[in-house]
Amino acid sequence: MSRIDPYHSRTGHPWEIADRHDPVVWEQGEGPLESVQLESYGKDGFLLLRDIFSREEVESMIRATDELRERFATEDRPEAVLEPGTKELRSLFRVHRYHSLYEGVVSDPRVTGPARQILGGDVYVHQSRVNLKPGFEGREFYWHSDFETWHVEDGMPRMRALSASLLLSDSLDCNGPLMVVPGSHRRYVRCPGTTPEEHFKESLRKQDIGVPPREALSSLAENGGIRTLVAPAGSVILFDCNLMHGSGGNMSPYPRNSLFVVYNSIENRLEDPFSGLPPRPVFLGER
Amino acid sequence: MSRIDPYHSRTGHPWEIADRHDPVVWEQGEGPLESVQLESYGKDGFLLLRDIFSREEVESMIRATDELRERFATEDRPEAVLEPGTKELRSLFRVHRYHSLYEGVVSDPRVTGPARQILGGDVYVHQSRVNLKPGFEGREFYWHSDFETWHVEDGMPRMRALSASLLLSDSLDCNGPLMVVPGSHRRYVRCPGTTPEEHFKESLRKQDIGVPPREALSSLAENGGIRTLVAPAGSVILFDCNLMHGSGGNMSPYPRNSLFVVYNSIENRLEDPFSGLPPRPVFLGER
Repeated sequence: MSRIDPYHSRTGHPWEIADRHDPVVWEQGEGPLESVQLESYGKDGFLLLRDIFSREEVESMIRATDELRERFATEDRPEAVLEPGTKELRSLFRVHRYHSLYEGVVSDPRVTGPARQILGGDVYVHQSRVNLKPGFEGREFYWHSDFETWHVEDGMPRMRALSASLLLSDSLDCNGPLMVVPGSHRRYVRCPGTTPEEHFKESLRKQDIGVPPREALSSLAENGGIRTLVAPAGSVILFDCNLMHGSGGNMSPYPRNSLFVVYNSIENRLEDPFSGLPPRPVFLGER
Repeated sequence: MSRIDPYHSRTGHPWEIADRHDPVVWEQGEGPLESVQLESYGKDGFLLLRDIFSREEVESMIRATDELRERFATEDRPEAVLEPGTKELRSLFRVHRYHSLYEGVVSDPRVTGPARQILGGDVYVHQSRVNLKPGFEGREFYWHSDFETWHVEDGMPRMRALSASLLLSDSLDCNGPLMVVPGSHRRYVRCPGTTPEEHFKESLRKQDIGVPPREALSSLAENGGIRTLVAPAGSVILFDCNLMHGSGGNMSPYPRNSLFVVYNSIENRLEDPFSGLPPRPVFLGER
């Protein structure tokens, strides 16, 4: 690998908290967000937009999910990822390619407008998925930076992407809501270890490689604390591709479901993965 | 068993949500709580008393815990309960008998005053323990009513007891705080199954018997919702012996430790367990 890589990780070296080499908010073009929102996003790495989609719209998305769930189950598709123990459906990937309703949602200006504004120009959908966290047994997603994986395993060169988490259920303090470490996106945690081949087959179920060490998380949380994001269904959480985030288990009777859409700048198209391994399947990263 | 038992449970019958046959707030004697606090406790089944113990007092309790932890580890005591997988220390029982500092804490009028007032007269310590929920890996405690276990396995006849949870760490929305179902104490969930002998040896680590069914929890939560109790270290949460409660895992870097003290009315001393089996060891229920 002769590319100079400011974001190398899992190269067999010890972990390290390194600098970010990209803006968070790119050249500020036109868009629906106010400057105070952009400033907040730049500082904290996330922005909560409450009540963006109506209850009716959310209900139609839930119906679309049910339709896809049935279709994928019948066809035994890799886009349907199950829990390791219980075999419950955990995620449905690439929903924007398989259901017209989601095709419409991911290109809705209420989401693409802010995404274009933050990323400074045209964007495309790098990944979409519905995450299902059922009541009583939803499992935790441990802390991670999405970018670290997208860079190493998918070849996303720069930090010029964001996730939009569209809440399909009320996100409550008791049902395993998204937790973020504000400000963590302005640093970069190089993870220890190296990436095994076809790592994604396991990592979608249970993460082991590309996991930030506890000392790194403690250090980031010492600076930024931890924020738990609660909001009603139909709200949208935008967060930087490098923001450290995770979510706890769901012991409550209430499911916590959400649509994740990852927008990447068209200036930031995928290259060969920085791991040197073949790229992951296209449902994990559009190429 | 010829005793008439309004709180029979695990008798091999299907689960059921039954009535409570005891007051929540007993004859209101003298005490530090105001009538609005007693009303709230009666209705919701819990009361959060903020900042009851000082930081210095909390620090001395943490030091006492460390001393007990070392002593118990050396002596391989059953009062020290480990996590099933990780073998990390999860609970230390009967701390009020093994450390003079905790002996003082459990008889401190700031706790016994409200307990006596709610339970209507003299009380004694039925059980004490320190719960340790370390950062990153603290496990969940699933939903349960303490009384159900104390009745069936220890022979506590009536609902005339309460728990005081004294927070030894800040209880945050991100470190697996106590969750309660307000109002659930005014009903009683008879659990399915029957109790195996020496059940406590497993149940302290991982609960399987005496677990309320999901339908029962959903029904209770439909009425009362779920409250997540966050408060600074040194605060005390009082809650009814029959309140449905639990707590999620702790993925945050911050530990969540607490001292639990169970006060029982002297009018409510233990009888033979209602399971018909021998009682559990005295560190789980003073006799």
